[in-house]
Amino acid sequence: MHDLAHIGHAELLTPRPDESLRFFEEVLGMEVEAREGQSVFLRGWGDYQRYGLKLTESDRAGLGHMALRAWSPQALDRRVAAVEASGLGSGWIDGDLGHGPAYRFTDPDGHVMELYFETEKYDPPEHLRPSLKNQPQRYVGRGAAVKRLDHVNVLAQDVLPNRTFAEEVLGYRLYERIVLDDGSEAGAWLSLSIAAHELIYVADARRERGRLHHLAFWVDTREEVLRAADLFLDHGVHIEAAPSKHAIAQGFFLYGFEPGGNRIEVTTGGYLVYDPDPEPTVWTEVERARGQAWGMKTVESFHTYGTPAPEPAPGS
Amino acid sequence: MHDLAHIGHAELLTPRPDESLRFFEEVLGMEVEAREGQSVFLRGWGDYQRYGLKLTESDRAGLGHMALRAWSPQALDRRVAAVEASGLGSGWIDGDLGHGPAYRFTDPDGHVMELYFETEKYDPPEHLRPSLKNQPQRYVGRGAAVKRLDHVNVLAQDVLPNRTFAEEVLGYRLYERIVLDDGSEAGAWLSLSIAAHELIYVADARRERGRLHHLAFWVDTREEVLRAADLFLDHGVHIEAAPSKHAIAQGFFLYGFEPGGNRIEVTTGGYLVYDPDPEPTVWTEVERARGQAWGMKTVESFHTYGTPAPEPAPGS
Amino acid sequence: MHDLAHIGHAELLTPRPDESLRFFEEVLGMEVEAREGQSVFLRGWGDYQRYGLKLTESDRAGLGHMALRAWSPQALDRRVAAVEASGLGSGWIDGDLGHGPAYRFTDPDGHVMELYFETEKYDPPEHLRPSLKNQPQRYVGRGAAVKRLDHVNVLAQDVLPNRTFAEEVLGYRLYERIVLDDGSEAGAWLSLSIAAHELIYVADARRERGRLHHLAFWVDTREEVLRAADLFLDHGVHIEAAPSKHAIAQGFFLYGFEPGGNRIEVTTGGYLVYDPDPEPTVWTEVERARGQAWGMKTVESFHTYGTPAPEPAPGS
Amino acid sequence: MHDLAHIGHAELLTPRPDESLRFFEEVLGMEVEAREGQSVFLRGWGDYQRYGLKLTESDRAGLGHMALRAWSPQALDRRVAAVEASGLGSGWIDGDLGHGPAYRFTDPDGHVMELYFETEKYDPPEHLRPSLKNQPQRYVGRGAAVKRLDHVNVLAQDVLPNRTFAEEVLGYRLYERIVLDDGSEAGAWLSLSIAAHELIYVADARRERGRLHHLAFWVDTREEVLRAADLFLDHGVHIEAAPSKHAIAQGFFLYGFEPGGNRIEVTTGGYLVYDPDPEPTVWTEVERARGQAWGMKTVESFHTYGTPAPEPAPGS
Repeated sequence: MHDLAHIGHAELLTPRPDESLRFFEEVLGMEVEAREGQSVFLRGWGDYQRYGLKLTESDRAGLGHMALRAWSPQALDRRVAAVEASGLGSGWIDGDLGHGPAYRFTDPDGHVMELYFETEKYDPPEHLRPSLKNQPQRYVGRGAAVKRLDHVNVLAQDVLPNRTFAEEVLGYRLYERIVLDDGSEAGAWLSLSIAAHELIYVADARRERGRLHHLAFWVDTREEVLRAADLFLDHGVHIEAAPSKHAIAQGFFLYGFEPGGNRIEVTTGGYLVYDPDPEPTVWTEVERARGQAWGMKTVESFHTYGTPAPEPAPGS
Repeated sequence: MHDLAHIGHAELLTPRPDESLRFFEEVLGMEVEAREGQSVFLRGWGDYQRYGLKLTESDRAGLGHMALRAWSPQALDRRVAAVEASGLGSGWIDGDLGHGPAYRFTDPDGHVMELYFETEKYDPPEHLRPSLKNQPQRYVGRGAAVKRLDHVNVLAQDVLPNRTFAEEVLGYRLYERIVLDDGSEAGAWLSLSIAAHELIYVADARRERGRLHHLAFWVDTREEVLRAADLFLDHGVHIEAAPSKHAIAQGFFLYGFEPGGNRIEVTTGGYLVYDPDPEPTVWTEVERARGQAWGMKTVESFHTYGTPAPEPAPGS
Repeated sequence: MHDLAHIGHAELLTPRPDESLRFFEEVLGMEVEAREGQSVFLRGWGDYQRYGLKLTESDRAGLGHMALRAWSPQALDRRVAAVEASGLGSGWIDGDLGHGPAYRFTDPDGHVMELYFETEKYDPPEHLRPSLKNQPQRYVGRGAAVKRLDHVNVLAQDVLPNRTFAEEVLGYRLYERIVLDDGSEAGAWLSLSIAAHELIYVADARRERGRLHHLAFWVDTREEVLRAADLFLDHGVHIEAAPSKHAIAQGFFLYGFEPGGNRIEVTTGGYLVYDPDPEPTVWTEVERARGQAWGMKTVESFHTYGTPAPEPAPGS
Repeated sequence: MHDLAHIGHAELLTPRPDESLRFFEEVLGMEVEAREGQSVFLRGWGDYQRYGLKLTESDRAGLGHMALRAWSPQALDRRVAAVEASGLGSGWIDGDLGHGPAYRFTDPDGHVMELYFETEKYDPPEHLRPSLKNQPQRYVGRGAAVKRLDHVNVLAQDVLPNRTFAEEVLGYRLYERIVLDDGSEAGAWLSLSIAAHELIYVADARRERGRLHHLAFWVDTREEVLRAADLFLDHGVHIEAAPSKHAIAQGFFLYGFEPGGNRIEVTTGGYLVYDPDPEPTVWTEVERARGQAWGMKTVESFHTYGTPAPEPAPGS
C-alpha cells in the first residue's frame, strides 16, 4: 500500500506566539510564507510546498494537527474510505492556506490528522529564488537553517492501537519498536518511505491522550546539528539533550524547547530502508536503559514531558 | 506503480581481478562475503542483503548486470509480465548466490538487468556482528568504509527510449533530465524511491551501446567523501574529479578508477523527493556548461570515458 | 625570535564601499564594530581585539595595510629597531581606532605594514555577549560566520627579498616554498606561530609591486567552507575556486570576490607545525603543475589576478 | 619565554600490553615504529618525530613520563638550569629511542618529565610514504586514524604549585582555570603554543600524587570524533563520555578506556590563542556544575577515576 506520501505539514500551538515565531524565524531560520488569523505559516528552504509548519496562537501548547499528503486523488479516496471505516473520521474541510480539500480525523489517541492531495507548489519571490533550479528556495543560511519538517513524535496512552492504525489504515511501515518486559509496546517508529522514521508513537508517561513529544526539523549534516547547538546556547534556548546519536533509528539529534513550551528537535542522519520486507527491530527494556547509541544517558524529562503540559518546560 | 524497490546489486567486470578486489576491500573498505567461480561477492557495512557488488573476472571492464529487487512476489510477476510484453525479456534463471529466481532482460540499450524478489538477509559472522541491532553489520571503518551501493550510471546510445522503458516498464520516477538545444535528451536521473537518483542514463559520446559510466557507493557524510579523497591519493588511485557538489541531483561526489578501469564514485548528499508528483527539473545545454554546483568545470574524460573502453582509463 | 604574535588586522581598499560592506556583513557574517571617516571596522566572532578588518573606501581595490601585533612593548621596540635598520621604516603614527602607537613601514615590495602592541580587548555589547566566557563574542551564525582574519597573501615582484625580510627582520618562520626550474622562488608560506601559514608571498605574474592576492578568513570546519560555497552561490558571489584542499599548507579553501574586486578566501584546516626546527617543504614546478591536493586544476585567474587590477575581477 | 616547543611524546604504562597495543594499533589506528625491551613505540600519521607514544608493560597503569622538546640547545640549557634551581631535577639520561640526551625531573606532584632537544625526524618506509610531501606519513585511515598526541591531562594533589611550576619553570602559558568557592584551584589549562591546551592539571579527587587523568590524541575534524565513537562501540571499547563539546577550552571530545585501564581521549576543535597577553578565563564552581558546553552533564567517574587506580576502569 503506497497511498500516502508524507507528512505535508504540522500545526503547532503556542501560548507565546510572538516569541515562538521569533524562535522559528531566527533560531531555526525558517521563512514566513503567509499569515492568516491567529496563524503564521513557515517554511524551510527545502519545502516544495508553501509551508511545512503552521504556528497558531492558542491558550496551550501542543500539536494542532498534522496533514498527510496522498500520492494521488485516487489514493486519497482509498485512505479516506479506510479512515471512515475505522470510525475515527470527522469529515471533509475545504482546505487551508496552500492546499485543497482535506479529510479530518483522529488517530485512536486523539491526535488530529488530515489527508489531502491538492497542494500549491512553492513559487519563491525574487529575493528567495535559488541558484540551483532543483531546489525550491534559495539557501538563506540564517540560524540553524532547517531544510524541512522531518518527523512528528507523538505521545499515546497506548502505543499499540495507534501503531496498528497507522499501519493498517494509513499504510505506514513499522521499522522499529520498543517492547517492555511486561510485553507492552513503549514506542513505535513508522514511515511512509525509505526514511527511517516519519511518525513516532511513544507511551505517555502521564497516561494522557493527544499529546506531542516533539516536532523534528531536518538539516543535511551532523555539523549543522552541532552548529545549531551553538546557536541554541547563544540564543538562550534551553538544550534538553546535547547533540548525540540515537540508538533507535540512528538519527543524530539536538533537543530544545521553543518559547511556547513545545520540544523541538534538529535532526539528521538515520538510515534508509531499501528492504521492502524488513523485519522490525525490537528493543528490550534492558537495551533501552543503556542510553543512546554512544551510551549517553537520556535525561529524565525526555521520558515524561510532552505538550500540553501541566508542568513548565524544562529549563524555563 | 511501486513494484520495484531498489537495485539489489550490480556486477562489475574486471580484467584485473586481484587488483580490483584489493581496491574494493582495502580502499573502499568492503567485506568479501563469498567467492564462486570467477566472482567475488562484496558488501558494504549497511547492506541488508549478503552483497551489493559482484566482482567478476572478464576480458574487459564494464557492467555485468544489475539486479532489481521487487516489493513482493506479486510485484515481481507484474514487472516480469511488463518486460515480456516489451519484447526485451530473456527468461528466468535459477538465481545466483544469495537470491532466488531472477528474470533476465536488457534495457533498450542492451544493459543486462535482472528482476528478483527472494533474497537472503545478511547474517553476520561473530567478528562482524554490530553493536546496534538495527544495523546489519558492524562498522569496520577500513578504508573509505562505504555503506552500500548507491546508484548505477549507464551510458546509452539514445537516452530517451531507455528512460521511457525505465519509467513505463520498470516503474522508475524521473526527477531530472538534460535536454540539449537540438531537443535531444542527454541525461536522465531516475529513482524508485525518494532518493534523488538510483539509475542514471547519460548519452554515450561514442554512440556505443551497453556501456557503464560508473557505480556509486554511499557514505553517510561529506567528511567521509573528503577522507576518501585522501585515501585515494595515498593509495595511488587516480582521482578524475576531486570532491565537489553536482548541480544535478546535488550529490556530493568523488570520482576515481578501480584497477580494472571502471569509474567508481564515492557519494553522499543529494536530496529526498517527498513530492509524489514532482515536475522533473530540466537542465539546458547552457546551464550544463556552467559546470558543477559551485562552478567546478567537469573534466573532459567524464563526458567521454565509459567501460568497456577502447582507450586506457584516465591516469593509468 | 618570538617578538611578533600575529597579524592583528588588515585594511582592505574598495571602490564600492557599500556593496563591499554588505558582502562582509551579510555573506561573511562579520559585525560592524565601528565607523570612522571613510572606513568601517569589522570583526569575526572569534576576534579578541575590536576588529580584524578595516574596510576603506578608495578609488581602487587592494591592501591598505596590515598590522602586526608584538608580544610585548620590549618586543615591539626590538622589531622597530630592526625595521629602521633595514631602511624601510616610515615612522610612528599615533595609532588607529582600537590600538595604540604603531610603527609604519613597507616590505621590500611596497606593501604597507604596521607594528603595534597596545590594543583594546573586545568588550561585547549586551546583544553580542557570549554564553561561553572563553569566547570574545556570541556566535551569531549569520552568513558564512567567519571567526577571524586568518592569513594575508600578497603578490610580490620578487618573492625572495620579501620572504627574507619577513624572516630576518620580522621573525617569521618559513614553512613551505615553491622553487621554479630556473631557481627562482615563486612562493613562500610564512608564519609567526604553529599555524601553517599567516603571511604568504607569491610572485606577481604582472611583475607589479604592492598588490594583494587575497585575504583569508577562518571558519572552524570544512563543512562551514562547503556551506559558504552555497551561500556564495545564492548571494551571487562569483566563485573562482570551489572548495577543495590545497597541496601547499593543506588548507581547505573557497575563493570568491567581494564587490570591490578583492579576492577573498574562506579557509580552514591546514596543519600545525610543532617542530621548532622544521625543514621547509620545497615544491617544484612539476609538482605545482599537478594542481591542488586532490588533483583539482587551479584556474588561470588565480595565477594572474591581484588587486589593484587593470582588468575586471573574474566573473564580474 | 619560548624555550619549550611541545610535548614530544608520552609514555603510558599498561598491565595488559598486548591488548593495549591492539587498541592503539587497530582502534586508534597508530603505527608501530619500533619495539625495545618492554616498550612499543607508536606514532600517528602526523607525527614529525618517530613516535608520540611509548607504550610500556608495567604492573600498573598510569603515566610513565612525558618528554618536552626544547626550541634549541640553548633553550634546553636554560630550562634545565631552571629545573635544577627548583630542586626537582633528577639529572641527565642518555636519551631514548629516537631522541638525544634528556634531562629528567618531576613536577611538584611527582609526574616524571624529561626535557630534550635532539631528535630523529621521521623517515617513512616505502609503504608509509605520503603523497603530499608536507606530511610526514601517508594517511592510512585505519581505525580512528589519530594524527598525533595532542595533550596530557594529569591529576595533582594540589593544582596550584604544579601550575605555577609549569608557568615559571617550564614557560607554559595559562589560558583557563577553575577556582572553587573556597578559593582553591581545581584545574589549570596550560599551553606552550597558541593551541588552547597542551598540559592540564586537575585536582585529584583521591588526593593522591602522580596520577594520570588522560592522554588525548588529535583528529582533524569533529566528524572523525563521531566516527571514532562508532568504532569504540563496535570494538567494545567502553565509552565514558560520548562526543560533545567541552566548555573549558571548547575542545570536542570522546572519552574511553584502553585495555590497560588508562583513559584516552579522541579530540579536535578548541580555539587558538593569538593574543600574546590574554587574561586567563576563570570558571567558578557554579559554572562548572552546569556541565559541558551544550549542557551535557559530566559523568561522575570523570571526576574521580585516574591511573594508577585502586578501582577497575569504568565499564570493565
